[in-house]
Amino acid sequence: MTTWSSTEADDIRKAAARTKAASRLLAKCPTSLKNAALLAMAERLEKAVSFLVTENKRDLTAGMEKGLSRPLLSRLSLMPKGIEQMAVGLREVAALPDPIGEIIHLHRRPNGMQVGQMRVPIGVIGIIYESRPNVTADVAGLCIKSGNGVVLRGGSEAIHSNRAIAHLLREAAEGAGLPPDCITLIQTTDRQAIFELLKLEASLDLIIPRGGSDLIQTVVAHSRIPVMKHDKGLCHTFVDDAADLTKAEAICLNAKVQRPETCNAMETLLVHQAIAESFLPGMIKRYEEAGVEIRGCPETIRIVGGHAKMTPAAEEDWTTEYLDLILSIKVIPDIDAAIEHISRHGSQHSDAIVTQNHDHAMRFLNEVDAAAVFVNASTRLNDGYEFGLGAEIGISTSRIHARGPMGLEALTCHKYIVLGTGQLRG
Amino acid sequence: MTTWSSTEADDIRKAAARTKAASRLLAKCPTSLKNAALLAMAERLEKAVSFLVTENKRDLTAGMEKGLSRPLLSRLSLMPKGIEQMAVGLREVAALPDPIGEIIHLHRRPNGMQVGQMRVPIGVIGIIYESRPNVTADVAGLCIKSGNGVVLRGGSEAIHSNRAIAHLLREAAEGAGLPPDCITLIQTTDRQAIFELLKLEASLDLIIPRGGSDLIQTVVAHSRIPVMKHDKGLCHTFVDDAADLTKAEAICLNAKVQRPETCNAMETLLVHQAIAESFLPGMIKRYEEAGVEIRGCPETIRIVGGHAKMTPAAEEDWTTEYLDLILSIKVIPDIDAAIEHISRHGSQHSDAIVTQNHDHAMRFLNEVDAAAVFVNASTRLNDGYEFGLGAEIGISTSRIHARGPMGLEALTCHKYIVLGTGQLRG
Repeated sequence: MTTWSSTEADDIRKAAARTKAASRLLAKCPTSLKNAALLAMAERLEKAVSFLVTENKRDLTAGMEKGLSRPLLSRLSLMPKGIEQMAVGLREVAALPDPIGEIIHLHRRPNGMQVGQMRVPIGVIGIIYESRPNVTADVAGLCIKSGNGVVLRGGSEAIHSNRAIAHLLREAAEGAGLPPDCITLIQTTDRQAIFELLKLEASLDLIIPRGGSDLIQTVVAHSRIPVMKHDKGLCHTFVDDAADLTKAEAICLNAKVQRPETCNAMETLLVHQAIAESFLPGMIKRYEEAGVEIRGCPETIRIVGGHAKMTPAAEEDWTTEYLDLILSIKVIPDIDAAIEHISRHGSQHSDAIVTQNHDHAMRFLNEVDAAAVFVNASTRLNDGYEFGLGAEIGISTSRIHARGPMGLEALTCHKYIVLGTGQLRG
Repeated sequence: MTTWSSTEADDIRKAAARTKAASRLLAKCPTSLKNAALLAMAERLEKAVSFLVTENKRDLTAGMEKGLSRPLLSRLSLMPKGIEQMAVGLREVAALPDPIGEIIHLHRRPNGMQVGQMRVPIGVIGIIYESRPNVTADVAGLCIKSGNGVVLRGGSEAIHSNRAIAHLLREAAEGAGLPPDCITLIQTTDRQAIFELLKLEASLDLIIPRGGSDLIQTVVAHSRIPVMKHDKGLCHTFVDDAADLTKAEAICLNAKVQRPETCNAMETLLVHQAIAESFLPGMIKRYEEAGVEIRGCPETIRIVGGHAKMTPAAEEDWTTEYLDLILSIKVIPDIDAAIEHISRHGSQHSDAIVTQNHDHAMRFLNEVDAAAVFVNASTRLNDGYEFGLGAEIGISTSRIHARGPMGLEALTCHKYIVLGTGQLRG
């Protein structure tokens, strides 16, 4: 860590203030101009593949010297295919409807004035993220389309890749007629830059941390600026006694194994005792074939223990986000116990019930408190594309402003508008 | 200030945790039960007038001994009429539609699953407020109706009044069948209690500070919990060259004098130079009759200075929220200068244009960034009742979650619901 200087703090303050000023111009930009800039940004990235690969190699070399793990190096790596994906993402965002300017709920009040709400940008959004350099282009695209300036603070391990991407994006934005300062990358890799950013309430309107629990907790503890958390997912699937067991098997397999490292993957399977004997042996066989390690409750072990490798579940298994091919399984007496278990141990992210019983489905929907509650579908479907939002900036675990996948609309706010003919307060 | 003990901190933590537990039950309560509790709370307050007046007198006596100002004592005072108003407010909230359970945007995705959003309570809302004890009943009513637990932290000067009101509300809620802990008043008057509350992110989901700038800044600086600010209003009215000057005079008078101590009262009047000579003399005469002190720009003084008492406006007048019968006036060249002045000096609260010119009206609506932007109406109309929301918990100056008057809907959030038939992630 270098010595932090007041000059560096000052540079960050000034850069954020420039982004705020640029965001005021961006807020007034017509859709056609924002879209042209997004398409220019996509093209600029595609034309600079060799530059981007070279800069990315500097990060990869430094990462190998520092002894980063293979998964981390893989997340850091920006192959030509990854660059093409950034360009495709920017074009997809360009094709989405512009959320800005929409007027909702315009209605006439008894005194004759019309009151409604106009959708406007939030202002400047600060994104604090780790590792994957493609985030730089993805979030910049979403922010520009929604009319927001963006201050990016990526991880130090990706600094050369991020600088290269941000440089190209700014260049393309400026070429298309946007103020280049609407996209700002914090150039210093010093961690102190994060604390500096979190003080700048005059320039930044929202902070979105994308990364591990430590990063999120640090941001929440120090920010004077509103924070949208994208926190962990301890997701459950409950197989009810009235479940279609064929559907249940497919859903439970998908929720665990399709991408176990994601926040919406299932970590705990709850099984109604009435169908446990018929459901669990086949289900666990599928899991074994997929390489899933099972942590079973005593009843699970009694039913399947003779035929399958299994570790007894400890108390902490019910509160552990494995993000891996590991699953805890508990046999429970009824839906009340399922809702109670989820309420006690869950992280309010994504929880599912598999059932053909309407009352049980409705009770689960109403009583389970999570960003997304599923009936007869995989928790893996908690996603902006799957929900029809287009691209997403992440999955919010906050309860304020936006909850669940955050698309373009979640990057906007409203202002009230009043069309009067001389109305006064009585 | 008493010595703060870990026991007191512990008491606050436990009380907030009890409120969180109660809020889970409240979230499931049918509308009829919540309404019955609100009506019982209204009746309980009405039947306890003499108890409330007695307890309020203890606060008033202590306030006089401490030398509180007359306006502060007046805000603290709870006359039988004030008690009746609390009861009326609770009955009005009971009569409003229940926002909870509404399902919006339910639509079918290409894979056949239906995705929508169900409106649910936020959880537990912490209100930190000053002086006026009627806030205790008003915000408790809004929180209960929207299914939220509430932790109340009123000012030390109103502690006996607040304790009495909260005691009656809890008693009535319990009598109606709600868990009494859904309403919790922090009993200690020590300021440290605020800092303690702001750490309790496991129990509190939202903090709303209602009070002066110091309180709001303290809360923002220390809270780990999301904060909805209800900050100051430095509101403008711009009288355009295309204004109907009769309407303009009525709007400008109302915006300044109807209740000058409120956040949506006008503080700065901007006048287009082309109509300044015809508009200002009559306008300023009306202001003088209403006892308004004028701080004029040089051009204002040139036009009216000979006929009216007037102080030259200093630079800080353009950034001062007077909350009093004082007004700064500036003659400006055109609508661009008006938008620029408001963007530079305003507080993004409530700003108005008076004009008959459609292009000017639309430019002002689109380009002025404020919680409420008015065409041909008084800024004083920025209010939950006036906008048709029913009761309000305040006027948000935040850009996240809610902006402008916050009614019942602003005290809710959504969860995504998915109705599937076996959908998996591909």
